[in-house]
Amino acid sequence: MNEHPQQSTVEARVVRVPDGSIAVEQLAVEEPLEIRINGEPLAVTMRTPGHDADLAAGFCFTEGIVDDPDDLVRVEPCNLADYGNIVDVIRTNTTPVTRREFYLSSSCGLCGTQTLDRIARRISNVPNDFNVSETVLTHLPHRMIEAQEVFARTGGLHAAALFTPAGHLRLLREDVGRHNAVDKVIGGLLLSGQVPCGSAVLIVSGRASFELVQKAARAGISFLAAVGAPSSLAVEAAERFGMTLVGFLREGRFNVYAHPHRISITLRS
Amino acid sequence: MNEHPQQSTVEARVVRVPDGSIAVEQLAVEEPLEIRINGEPLAVTMRTPGHDADLAAGFCFTEGIVDDPDDLVRVEPCNLADYGNIVDVIRTNTTPVTRREFYLSSSCGLCGTQTLDRIARRISNVPNDFNVSETVLTHLPHRMIEAQEVFARTGGLHAAALFTPAGHLRLLREDVGRHNAVDKVIGGLLLSGQVPCGSAVLIVSGRASFELVQKAARAGISFLAAVGAPSSLAVEAAERFGMTLVGFLREGRFNVYAHPHRISITLRS
Repeated sequence: MNEHPQQSTVEARVVRVPDGSIAVEQLAVEEPLEIRINGEPLAVTMRTPGHDADLAAGFCFTEGIVDDPDDLVRVEPCNLADYGNIVDVIRTNTTPVTRREFYLSSSCGLCGTQTLDRIARRISNVPNDFNVSETVLTHLPHRMIEAQEVFARTGGLHAAALFTPAGHLRLLREDVGRHNAVDKVIGGLLLSGQVPCGSAVLIVSGRASFELVQKAARAGISFLAAVGAPSSLAVEAAERFGMTLVGFLREGRFNVYAHPHRISITLRS
Repeated sequence: MNEHPQQSTVEARVVRVPDGSIAVEQLAVEEPLEIRINGEPLAVTMRTPGHDADLAAGFCFTEGIVDDPDDLVRVEPCNLADYGNIVDVIRTNTTPVTRREFYLSSSCGLCGTQTLDRIARRISNVPNDFNVSETVLTHLPHRMIEAQEVFARTGGLHAAALFTPAGHLRLLREDVGRHNAVDKVIGGLLLSGQVPCGSAVLIVSGRASFELVQKAARAGISFLAAVGAPSSLAVEAAERFGMTLVGFLREGRFNVYAHPHRISITLRS
């Protein structure tokens, strides 16, 4: 394999069956990224290189390590000897972060309701005063795929995309990990002063897990739509956080699992 | 929503669009599981309840916390007050585990080759003396879906399934998380004394990441096939570990990314 540090795809030779031909294909790159906070190692995550500053900022914010967007000064790459796989998140608050805080830990007794209440106290207020039409919504997955540069080459990347309620693309990010793609979108918003992000719809490829709902809620996103199925806890969390949750958004259809009031349906004669 | 602790699906009311009908659907359950080692909390993972002992055993083994299958005595549920969401992994070795060891950490300089070499020293030897025919391989995804009980109800679960080279199902596990499904399969093998697992093919729904290749290699699985695309590091790791890696296994076709010698192709006239 041909390695290109900091590129999002690499070439690989594959044997295609049943043809039996040998072809050169593009693979989505997966590499570790070390995230530091004020110089101290915090976490290592597997990701697709590209928008690493967004990923680091988004990760720190959605995992509750950086609580306040104003506390986040900037994200710096470390030296070149590490192939660009280490970034440093610079905070105003210089209190050392000893380790990643898990929202779901044994201390809450693993009781769903208590945990959701605790998270709800830390999320941004979600905007209510907007509406997305059925027609706009059903077109968004196609618009997301059209905008996905790396997916087109590899067929192997997840994406998250933020749209306006009228269906205009605000920000799209790709990654081998679905949660990374969401962190990159949220980090991109954070670093450009757009959190809380106002009236917006976040579309994710694949399924909607609890983690994605929690991350979106942290950024004040009140409308999440997944191409795949939601999990039970994703639905419970969306209900609790006042978030509209749509699943199975594909081929002109979708299901609404929570807070349908932000969707306008076309009347049929 | 109707909660059933320890069930793998729950019912939810959804609005279907464009029909506008309100329907009751089955959702895949996602709940936190706390894994303890000899009574000490180790990690919390989001999972679909079911085969929790397998998940805990597989997680500890594939993450390198339990090194030797013989060190793993049994997995016990904790008391009922926690809704079955805490399990205790009992080891012979009572040295306290202070925290999860990350295979990929800053200490290795995040250099792919060094890291892979380090992991390679800890994996089981992979068997070479078997062959899977193209015909058997192309039928496996269908056999896996047929055997997936929860997916049939929800459309929303990942699966991992271990087959013999002749295409007979040995073990299938489902979960909202792909890595959990693989940990459940490996844990199931471990707890029944089947690691290293001999000649076998592991099929996973979705994509093949580095983490899945590493987990499979730890259990001595030398043939991994994914319904989706592999990442760059998944291919690199499979090459290094001597593992056959197949991707895009669907609709009678597939690509071989590493070590094709374990596949026999039908000659065409």
